[in-house]
Amino acid sequence: MSLTPTQDDRFSFGLWTVGWQGVDVFGGPVRPRLDPVEAVHRLAELGAAAVTFHDDDLVPDEATRQSELDRFTKALAETGLGVEMATTNLFSHAVFKDGGLTANDRAVRRYALTKVLRNLDLAAELGATTYVLWGGREGAESGGSKDVHAALDRYKESMDLLCGYVRERGYDLRFALEPKPNEPRGDILLPTIGHALAFIDTLDEPERVGLNPEVGHEEMAGLNFAQGIAQALWHGKLFHVDLNGQHGPRFDQDLRFGAGNLRGAFWTVDALERGGYDGYLHFDYKPPRTEDVDGVWETARACMRNYLILREKVRAFRADPEVAEALDAARVGELAVPTLAEGETLADLRAQTHDPEALAARGLHFERLDQLAMEHLLGVR
Amino acid sequence: MSLTPTQDDRFSFGLWTVGWQGVDVFGGPVRPRLDPVEAVHRLAELGAAAVTFHDDDLVPDEATRQSELDRFTKALAETGLGVEMATTNLFSHAVFKDGGLTANDRAVRRYALTKVLRNLDLAAELGATTYVLWGGREGAESGGSKDVHAALDRYKESMDLLCGYVRERGYDLRFALEPKPNEPRGDILLPTIGHALAFIDTLDEPERVGLNPEVGHEEMAGLNFAQGIAQALWHGKLFHVDLNGQHGPRFDQDLRFGAGNLRGAFWTVDALERGGYDGYLHFDYKPPRTEDVDGVWETARACMRNYLILREKVRAFRADPEVAEALDAARVGELAVPTLAEGETLADLRAQTHDPEALAARGLHFERLDQLAMEHLLGVR
Amino acid sequence: MSLTPTQDDRFSFGLWTVGWQGVDVFGGPVRPRLDPVEAVHRLAELGAAAVTFHDDDLVPDEATRQSELDRFTKALAETGLGVEMATTNLFSHAVFKDGGLTANDRAVRRYALTKVLRNLDLAAELGATTYVLWGGREGAESGGSKDVHAALDRYKESMDLLCGYVRERGYDLRFALEPKPNEPRGDILLPTIGHALAFIDTLDEPERVGLNPEVGHEEMAGLNFAQGIAQALWHGKLFHVDLNGQHGPRFDQDLRFGAGNLRGAFWTVDALERGGYDGYLHFDYKPPRTEDVDGVWETARACMRNYLILREKVRAFRADPEVAEALDAARVGELAVPTLAEGETLADLRAQTHDPEALAARGLHFERLDQLAMEHLLGVR
Amino acid sequence: MSLTPTQDDRFSFGLWTVGWQGVDVFGGPVRPRLDPVEAVHRLAELGAAAVTFHDDDLVPDEATRQSELDRFTKALAETGLGVEMATTNLFSHAVFKDGGLTANDRAVRRYALTKVLRNLDLAAELGATTYVLWGGREGAESGGSKDVHAALDRYKESMDLLCGYVRERGYDLRFALEPKPNEPRGDILLPTIGHALAFIDTLDEPERVGLNPEVGHEEMAGLNFAQGIAQALWHGKLFHVDLNGQHGPRFDQDLRFGAGNLRGAFWTVDALERGGYDGYLHFDYKPPRTEDVDGVWETARACMRNYLILREKVRAFRADPEVAEALDAARVGELAVPTLAEGETLADLRAQTHDPEALAARGLHFERLDQLAMEHLLGVR
Repeated sequence: MSLTPTQDDRFSFGLWTVGWQGVDVFGGPVRPRLDPVEAVHRLAELGAAAVTFHDDDLVPDEATRQSELDRFTKALAETGLGVEMATTNLFSHAVFKDGGLTANDRAVRRYALTKVLRNLDLAAELGATTYVLWGGREGAESGGSKDVHAALDRYKESMDLLCGYVRERGYDLRFALEPKPNEPRGDILLPTIGHALAFIDTLDEPERVGLNPEVGHEEMAGLNFAQGIAQALWHGKLFHVDLNGQHGPRFDQDLRFGAGNLRGAFWTVDALERGGYDGYLHFDYKPPRTEDVDGVWETARACMRNYLILREKVRAFRADPEVAEALDAARVGELAVPTLAEGETLADLRAQTHDPEALAARGLHFERLDQLAMEHLLGVR
Repeated sequence: MSLTPTQDDRFSFGLWTVGWQGVDVFGGPVRPRLDPVEAVHRLAELGAAAVTFHDDDLVPDEATRQSELDRFTKALAETGLGVEMATTNLFSHAVFKDGGLTANDRAVRRYALTKVLRNLDLAAELGATTYVLWGGREGAESGGSKDVHAALDRYKESMDLLCGYVRERGYDLRFALEPKPNEPRGDILLPTIGHALAFIDTLDEPERVGLNPEVGHEEMAGLNFAQGIAQALWHGKLFHVDLNGQHGPRFDQDLRFGAGNLRGAFWTVDALERGGYDGYLHFDYKPPRTEDVDGVWETARACMRNYLILREKVRAFRADPEVAEALDAARVGELAVPTLAEGETLADLRAQTHDPEALAARGLHFERLDQLAMEHLLGVR
Repeated sequence: MSLTPTQDDRFSFGLWTVGWQGVDVFGGPVRPRLDPVEAVHRLAELGAAAVTFHDDDLVPDEATRQSELDRFTKALAETGLGVEMATTNLFSHAVFKDGGLTANDRAVRRYALTKVLRNLDLAAELGATTYVLWGGREGAESGGSKDVHAALDRYKESMDLLCGYVRERGYDLRFALEPKPNEPRGDILLPTIGHALAFIDTLDEPERVGLNPEVGHEEMAGLNFAQGIAQALWHGKLFHVDLNGQHGPRFDQDLRFGAGNLRGAFWTVDALERGGYDGYLHFDYKPPRTEDVDGVWETARACMRNYLILREKVRAFRADPEVAEALDAARVGELAVPTLAEGETLADLRAQTHDPEALAARGLHFERLDQLAMEHLLGVR
Repeated sequence: MSLTPTQDDRFSFGLWTVGWQGVDVFGGPVRPRLDPVEAVHRLAELGAAAVTFHDDDLVPDEATRQSELDRFTKALAETGLGVEMATTNLFSHAVFKDGGLTANDRAVRRYALTKVLRNLDLAAELGATTYVLWGGREGAESGGSKDVHAALDRYKESMDLLCGYVRERGYDLRFALEPKPNEPRGDILLPTIGHALAFIDTLDEPERVGLNPEVGHEEMAGLNFAQGIAQALWHGKLFHVDLNGQHGPRFDQDLRFGAGNLRGAFWTVDALERGGYDGYLHFDYKPPRTEDVDGVWETARACMRNYLILREKVRAFRADPEVAEALDAARVGELAVPTLAEGETLADLRAQTHDPEALAARGLHFERLDQLAMEHLLGVR
């Protein structure tokens, strides 16, 4: 198997990931600022296919906006890297301390909206096809300070406006909401995949909006990420994905993909590969503060390599005849058979007799199946 | 303020709550079986308005079904208590070890469906208007053993069949799904309020199906229950509610209402009262194993009393002029004002200038507001 | 009851708490730097008795060290505030990215040690009697990168050296270790009260070292803080305490005291009051980023006020005759009676007969007792 | 590498693990009772070296005690299996609903003590060398119902009595305390490895008491198990170990070893192998309810197999020259070098100059090291 990534693998990285300087609640930067142009060149060398950006990552200073963009697009052209996704930073500046699109302060919401619009234009210009909204500051620490009903109204107002804008401009862009349960806010609106999916159904143009779930965000709520994206795929809403690592309910660790819950990563790759996901594989992680710049590139390399390793293993698992037999014994395929036969009615069903004791005696053999998966993962089959 | 519940308060209890005998993974029963007839009488004396049941709570033995039902309906008539909700036990018997409506074994699914149908008839006969489905065994411990796509198909098939049945029979019943993230299964399907809301949108008759969220279940995922039910209300889907107490991510504690996260309980009552919820206030909890039968009734009494105490406090909080002033300072009401003015376009908005630094300097004063809520809760205002 | 704090209440605040500017992983400062001199004056006005500091809070710049110290001591003299505790910042500067006293890099450990020594001198000079060590960066993200055995050896080496230093200098200072399970490191050494207590027993001068547990840190591990400090008191090791608020396992929220787990706060105050704790009541929290400077002082005021409110309630609970009766019914006092009678042997005990069925039938009545506590907390008794 | 266990591998199983019938809070048994004699034979065939038991597992019925023991010892003799550990069931019977050794009810404590004594005699007779105490019901759901100070006094009284008993009888038995944070009680006394270590230091004969930590129990508190047992080994207190799997803070899953946190399992095996642990490798898990009897043996087989697989991988990791080089780059070995040189004083240290900026610029290269561990685990090196 080839574990060297190519552009065909469609790996992408946020500029803010490899560019994270290490500032956290308890300490200052540990690494110098990374020039986006250098990021593009290094990621291209490592085999990535695309980069993604927040407006403030790419053009932190208005004065040098055009020159920075020129240098950046030149680097893209030189390397063949694309921009596949963009997003707005509605969380770093103090103005967004109570959120952007759902800030209580209407003037803040108005400013936030213009910031999104402006970066939508840039995203479209640079060829991005997905536009992510992570509402990390949209939430509250206390029950009285946020009227959830009004907040959802405003979220919907914003999304409807943004969909209309994209439609009118004719941009080839779809929106992807990124749920997160908490941090930096005490409780964030649309905290999980499910809440965001439900919200999307209320929009004027729901077909323009899907999800960008992140491994760690769901695992911070103790939820199973593979199961979550399987539901998103079932709804036709997995527009993008953020891959990283996390150790369950605690602070947002943003580890490289594979670190944290490795068995979960195996099933995540399986869910993506089998569920027909055809978008970019986007890594949204933070190289730990212990790393210098070399360590940054080591983690970027490892994210892609771990995905490729797991993809090989998932494919081998699914191709293994003993696994096929074990899936059969576990009646996994039987779940795809409708519970009522064609033409059968509930009355027909009730007329039949059932023997729960006999059914209860049947073993499901799930552990054997899971052990086969484990052994593929461990490389001992 | 009156802290003595009456039937107007619409409190209800599951027969299985006060009737819990204390069996858990690590030990056997600590209390004798509670006769449903006694439960009805005692709950009526304490001020409850209704009871709810699983088929197996009410009629554990087929041989005595009719006589037990006769005794039960007689007790209802004597006390004036109603049956407001019913549900099916699809989790205790070994036949449901892999779930009911989404069991891999099709014969199990068929049996499960008939079990629901039969109890729907009884629920309708007894006057219940809500029918809850808690899919506690619908899930998996391992990634390979459950095809999530197929499982959601089967869940939908079942719900569509059940909706059709209720429509055809003309039952005045709405379904309410009860989400839970895990326990007893490793990962349960439709793990949160959000996931269940999204699922409902895919059904043939979504208007017949809403939610029965439980305080502890959302808090097991670290989610804010008040925020969750506020979103459910926003979607028009809070059909029923399960009130109890929990200490965050850990096993399902099912404490009496108020115990566990008390500040959360305050905001839960606020969300119910302000959000226009007009259904029953259903306690789904377990009297701890340390309690004898007297302790059981003490906990039932305390559930209702704590709700009434919190309702008084919530009302006083909302009526307090200083709170009104603090809400104003926190710009809470401003969130209900659309971000764009009537007739305003995005082009208009973009033509304006924004001063993020000036906006950033504005304090939100959320802590003062929250401290006022705290002091109402503590009874020191 | 008086809810206005005085210096007799022995409340203290870290300069870094009211001085937190709001920098977190996702955003920059929201408030200007707070001059320690202003902090002293404002805290004195609010009723605090003392302040505490990290070396870097008080003297961020070496060039102005003496003039800053002069201004600070003048403010202390003017207000009557004391310095009761000091600590070293071994976590903000990039040099400490892998910890201080247990950094793999020996040169870093040597620098860290000198930084502690220097601030010990200042702490003693300013009259502090407790010196806290919070090892927030002492830990690892991955299993191979930290030799735990060696790390504990080095931790012990450092503590033994520091104890010797304090002894030789004749400083009236005791050390207090502050445990935390994670954040900012993936896993921190000595993650809970228990781990730190056990470590202390291995030191050369264990009597010089105790604990400074923090509410939120234990609750991040889902542990019961009141129970934890009760164990620390049982070991004679509760030298200091950090009071704040948290919502269970998630990022370190550092809410004002009372916010988060309010019922836990009630039992925390009870444990402190009944357990004979006579040290300072130190608030280690962060005013949320939504607050401006006024909000900062509102939170400081509320921390103290909430403690006083809870203290009154705890005292009323313990003085309530019905509570005394309920404690008796719950056999709480019976636990203080030795299991064997004086002079009784195990052989005597075995010679007796026991009737487990009869004992099992006795109810414990814990819920009634807890409901009385709840009602005291809610102010409805 | 051989992945077939032999008695030299010292694997052991509790009779209650393979014998678990599947009763949980939400459902009844799914499997028939397993005869301990059958368990012995099957485990021997699979390669285990020993079994362990609770009194009630082995002799559930007093009437048949001697005949059951005769059959059991015959099976041991036939298979060569040993009994390496025993423990007392102080949690299943209703009499222990408030605990055993720390129950408020003194008569319960007295009964509990006699139950332990009796099974100590049996344990010694059957050749066990470790006696575990898991205090699952020693705790509380509410703050007022348990006097923690008195509870720790009683725990100490019991342990001192039991140590004296073992000494007087001359039994070759050491005690091992098994911590757990919660479930089935709301908060359990001695909730983590650390709390139990600290407690042991207070006993009259601390050398007779150590720990039996369980993977899942520490992970339920979000703690790193490998780090925890490394600290226990540092204290010389890892007397026994319970291996299983868990998915972080939630209910006690008791998955087979390897399932759950696989990366954690790798570092757990590393900590055991490198830390000099020479006791039995004891699996304390529950075959999921989905499994029939064949599935039970599949899980037992997999527990041992996964340990052997991980042991091979850990050894290969530690033997890999590139790992040695990466450990060096990460300065892992440098942590074993004392911070002060031999003969160096703190005054000497302070006389030196330090350059924190230069030190801060050094990268730690932890991610490269961790990726090497990952690739050994995945079998791609």
